[in-house]
Amino acid sequence: MTDDHKNDKTFGEAVWIGAGNMGLPMAKNLLASGIRLGVHNRSKNRLTPLLEAGALEITDLPGSLSATPLVFTMLADDAAVGEMVSKSGGILERLSRGGVHVSMGTLSPAFVEKLTGMHRERGQVLVSAPVFGRPDRARAGTLTIVAAGPSETVDAVLPLLERMGSTVFRVGEDPALANHVKILGNFTLGGLLETLAESLSFARRVGVSPDQLVEILDTALYRSPVFRNYGQMMAREEFQPAGFRMRLGLKDVRLALAEADRVEVPLPLADLLHAGYLAGIHRGYEDWDWAALGRVRAEDAGVAERSLPVRTRTED
Amino acid sequence: MTDDHKNDKTFGEAVWIGAGNMGLPMAKNLLASGIRLGVHNRSKNRLTPLLEAGALEITDLPGSLSATPLVFTMLADDAAVGEMVSKSGGILERLSRGGVHVSMGTLSPAFVEKLTGMHRERGQVLVSAPVFGRPDRARAGTLTIVAAGPSETVDAVLPLLERMGSTVFRVGEDPALANHVKILGNFTLGGLLETLAESLSFARRVGVSPDQLVEILDTALYRSPVFRNYGQMMAREEFQPAGFRMRLGLKDVRLALAEADRVEVPLPLADLLHAGYLAGIHRGYEDWDWAALGRVRAEDAGVAERSLPVRTRTED
Amino acid sequence: MTDDHKNDKTFGEAVWIGAGNMGLPMAKNLLASGIRLGVHNRSKNRLTPLLEAGALEITDLPGSLSATPLVFTMLADDAAVGEMVSKSGGILERLSRGGVHVSMGTLSPAFVEKLTGMHRERGQVLVSAPVFGRPDRARAGTLTIVAAGPSETVDAVLPLLERMGSTVFRVGEDPALANHVKILGNFTLGGLLETLAESLSFARRVGVSPDQLVEILDTALYRSPVFRNYGQMMAREEFQPAGFRMRLGLKDVRLALAEADRVEVPLPLADLLHAGYLAGIHRGYEDWDWAALGRVRAEDAGVAERSLPVRTRTED
Amino acid sequence: MTDDHKNDKTFGEAVWIGAGNMGLPMAKNLLASGIRLGVHNRSKNRLTPLLEAGALEITDLPGSLSATPLVFTMLADDAAVGEMVSKSGGILERLSRGGVHVSMGTLSPAFVEKLTGMHRERGQVLVSAPVFGRPDRARAGTLTIVAAGPSETVDAVLPLLERMGSTVFRVGEDPALANHVKILGNFTLGGLLETLAESLSFARRVGVSPDQLVEILDTALYRSPVFRNYGQMMAREEFQPAGFRMRLGLKDVRLALAEADRVEVPLPLADLLHAGYLAGIHRGYEDWDWAALGRVRAEDAGVAERSLPVRTRTED
Repeated sequence: MTDDHKNDKTFGEAVWIGAGNMGLPMAKNLLASGIRLGVHNRSKNRLTPLLEAGALEITDLPGSLSATPLVFTMLADDAAVGEMVSKSGGILERLSRGGVHVSMGTLSPAFVEKLTGMHRERGQVLVSAPVFGRPDRARAGTLTIVAAGPSETVDAVLPLLERMGSTVFRVGEDPALANHVKILGNFTLGGLLETLAESLSFARRVGVSPDQLVEILDTALYRSPVFRNYGQMMAREEFQPAGFRMRLGLKDVRLALAEADRVEVPLPLADLLHAGYLAGIHRGYEDWDWAALGRVRAEDAGVAERSLPVRTRTED
Repeated sequence: MTDDHKNDKTFGEAVWIGAGNMGLPMAKNLLASGIRLGVHNRSKNRLTPLLEAGALEITDLPGSLSATPLVFTMLADDAAVGEMVSKSGGILERLSRGGVHVSMGTLSPAFVEKLTGMHRERGQVLVSAPVFGRPDRARAGTLTIVAAGPSETVDAVLPLLERMGSTVFRVGEDPALANHVKILGNFTLGGLLETLAESLSFARRVGVSPDQLVEILDTALYRSPVFRNYGQMMAREEFQPAGFRMRLGLKDVRLALAEADRVEVPLPLADLLHAGYLAGIHRGYEDWDWAALGRVRAEDAGVAERSLPVRTRTED
Repeated sequence: MTDDHKNDKTFGEAVWIGAGNMGLPMAKNLLASGIRLGVHNRSKNRLTPLLEAGALEITDLPGSLSATPLVFTMLADDAAVGEMVSKSGGILERLSRGGVHVSMGTLSPAFVEKLTGMHRERGQVLVSAPVFGRPDRARAGTLTIVAAGPSETVDAVLPLLERMGSTVFRVGEDPALANHVKILGNFTLGGLLETLAESLSFARRVGVSPDQLVEILDTALYRSPVFRNYGQMMAREEFQPAGFRMRLGLKDVRLALAEADRVEVPLPLADLLHAGYLAGIHRGYEDWDWAALGRVRAEDAGVAERSLPVRTRTED
Repeated sequence: MTDDHKNDKTFGEAVWIGAGNMGLPMAKNLLASGIRLGVHNRSKNRLTPLLEAGALEITDLPGSLSATPLVFTMLADDAAVGEMVSKSGGILERLSRGGVHVSMGTLSPAFVEKLTGMHRERGQVLVSAPVFGRPDRARAGTLTIVAAGPSETVDAVLPLLERMGSTVFRVGEDPALANHVKILGNFTLGGLLETLAESLSFARRVGVSPDQLVEILDTALYRSPVFRNYGQMMAREEFQPAGFRMRLGLKDVRLALAEADRVEVPLPLADLLHAGYLAGIHRGYEDWDWAALGRVRAEDAGVAERSLPVRTRTED
């Protein structure tokens, strides 16, 4: 193994860190490429399906990181990645010069900028490759992946990313660009939720069937599964179990607002979402699907079907 | 011809009023059904293509209205319909008892409620049937039509509506319901524009390609021609010539806000749109496509490419 | 009595219409000037205190209107004034050419513009003179009055207005200007309420005493009785009985929004107020003081002390 | 000098750090109490007026900090205080156990919470005592001071605070409470600016004199110097030189939004201010008075008197 993997055109081995609802099926698809894959997860028992599919259990993470040219992380947030990167025996300390870190989680661009610099100082290379899609698409290998990083490094990992996603977009050399795209994607979904929430409250109020409204508008205008799915969920008030919890929706809009503030872009619609999720959380919808924004707006329009339990200060 | 057309299952003749960009191709498709169609338009010269296609020119509108069981109007706004209905020799005065008025324009629900009562008092029947789609879809006969009115009357006109649209939705017995759906549809498009406007401003600011962002999000999430079309238009700043002028966007959001206020539903997103269009109009974008909301947000984010001419008070 | 009262420097007699909570004390102060005052009110029994103070009961309103050069109206809204002006035997029909109508209610500028034209056509003169102040200041004769109308007519009525208010501002020749000022004044109070509502919710949340916050900020910054009064009312949640009902607050912000829309001025803060009052009304605060906007914001911040009864659709 | 100054009822000596526009006059007033005051400032030349008034120049800051029971800081922001507290030879390292740090700057509550814990660990005591008032009031000794900290420590420093301010409010034992009050005070001023900005734009549009509007509303409703001063500044568009720069207004609203988000309180009015200041900064008003928010709203209402230079991306 040379000191510089940048020119490798293919990777025969890698370390995978993170076996959550997304990471597990993604790693499984990666394995099917024939790559030799060492896997690590905080809870060991989550690894069983991967080991059965041929992955190697990592018993000495620092050692494995030292011995491999490539490490993937699919972790929940900045804090989890920061810990894995910076801890003693972690990625920064152990990955070789020229080694590649492909981070696939939804992280803040500000953190990814910092991470980029930290890896660069150690002669390592960061590729940021967050994904769009829920666990079902992760299992099917049909995620959309947005990758950014030095061009030849992205070239090198591309065949691996293509095992996990049906489409891989390359958005530039600066890794944080991929995270901007991911954050913007989630923000647009929030915009759709707000639009639906207000429209369906209005519809209920004037006697238009919410379900039919969604069907008509999807037929007449959108022809979009996302529009139809969220529209139906909100029309039918199917907010539990959550596909994506309101608390996570709040986390996402905070990411968007923090970034927007950093670059001094006003986002009035994100402000509306932020206020709406907070109100929803105070009404007890924290663990409901973020589409329960529809319930918040319905209540403010006087068309909700129950009274609101308001959490008082002392309960918090 | 009896005094009551409600039980007629088919109409062999009708009067069509309005030959604008939408009305003309709609009437042409209607003609193809074999119906005997008298046509009227304020500017006679607009009628030529219809006359060539077999329509009959109306020289005595009051007489024609008296002699037919069915009249269609495809007119620009409440005022135009109100004039045609209420004037001396107009629809209200001349249409026979049991006669049917099918109004296909985008009118305010409040006005349609009034119109419903006026017709009812005269023993006439109103069907409201606004349409979704631009002139190209009107020509192709693939509009989506939303119809509301007394059930058997809608039954009777349905075969005619189906000549003009590929899909006809029935939303209830109260004609105004169809207009609520139409207004809500336009409002959701406004929501999409706001979402895109903020996202693309953010993207420009951080160096993400606006055009690529639209492609990625459409691929990853929306798979919607409307999302893609408006997204590209805004990413490329192709605001002229306007498909739908900002001034009309303002008219639509005013309709939504007026109705929402009447039924006491808060619409904070519509408030944002209202403020955004007004700002755009004061910056000189009145006749640009309403997607120029993207320009307004870009300017407020410091990423527009030119200075803003601000109209002063005295110019108004 | 000549045909033209414009050059009269003083009025010795007048008709007063409207004896509500404001109109009654205002008329009483006017009487003290020694003017001969005929008084009219829909409910006769409200007139007793005025008759005891020397007013003349009007038994034939059309006759009295014909015989006097000056009529004051202090009525609730556009509709009430419109009726009194336009009805058979009303002001427009009976007031002599050159007669003066001083309208002191809070009317919409659009209506006042119409009214100005109607009077002008009949050779009559309108002065609009809405007031700031509650009934206590009306009784004390310390209202602030904002007058607009033709200069010499305002000159002529000024001594009478000064019996009712301690300060009279003249804002121009166009009567509607006075109503714009009145609407703007009420809008600024709404802005103060929103500011307090958000600040006090924040304070409650972090453990700052709401009452002390108001005291500190009034001492440090505002030194304003209005700030202190509304601040204390909101800090102490003293929303009943209402000094000014939330339903009326909604009416006022609607006036501001309607005017702003007419002249194409965005008012995002008024939009917030509008949404806030609507939410409050749906939560049952319609008849509470409009400062109960503080309750609405507190609920959305999770610091309200009770659950929210939400009115359902069927109750409306 | 004992190891614990908590029970001292008076302090005869102190160190003062920070001689900016506020710190200098405040220290001067403190000196007049007869206290022995060592003074320190990054730029030595700012200290001259204090030395002339009897202050002692500090040549060895760590030594002085070790020798005194009391240190005041009047520094610009979290970063400046953090540096002075945490650096080698700084307050944390050198102040004796039981020593008191009185921080008088406008800091974030989150930072003050951290600072409180840091001092507590070292057996030191933090009093937070931010001030309301501009340099003129600092010179006159008529600031309003909001103090929070352990009760007996506040007792002990109270006579000193009263040399600098005409009113000292005590808001509790937790130092961060004082900073919450300060932040809320500045937020309410922002609310006043937004209210004025929208009102004056509306007034300009309909032909009401902005200057007269301010005079009328102050007379009729507010009777508040703050209302009148900001109102006049905005009515007359006197935005330069800035009393308080828009860039600082943005900093303040960011503090409020960050705190509000931390405790999950929606602040829609603060969102409006944030968007408004950002738009203003992109239009080139960064160094104008924050009352230039009035210019931003006027431009969006089409009543500004010049065209807008919009800074493009490349200029940033």
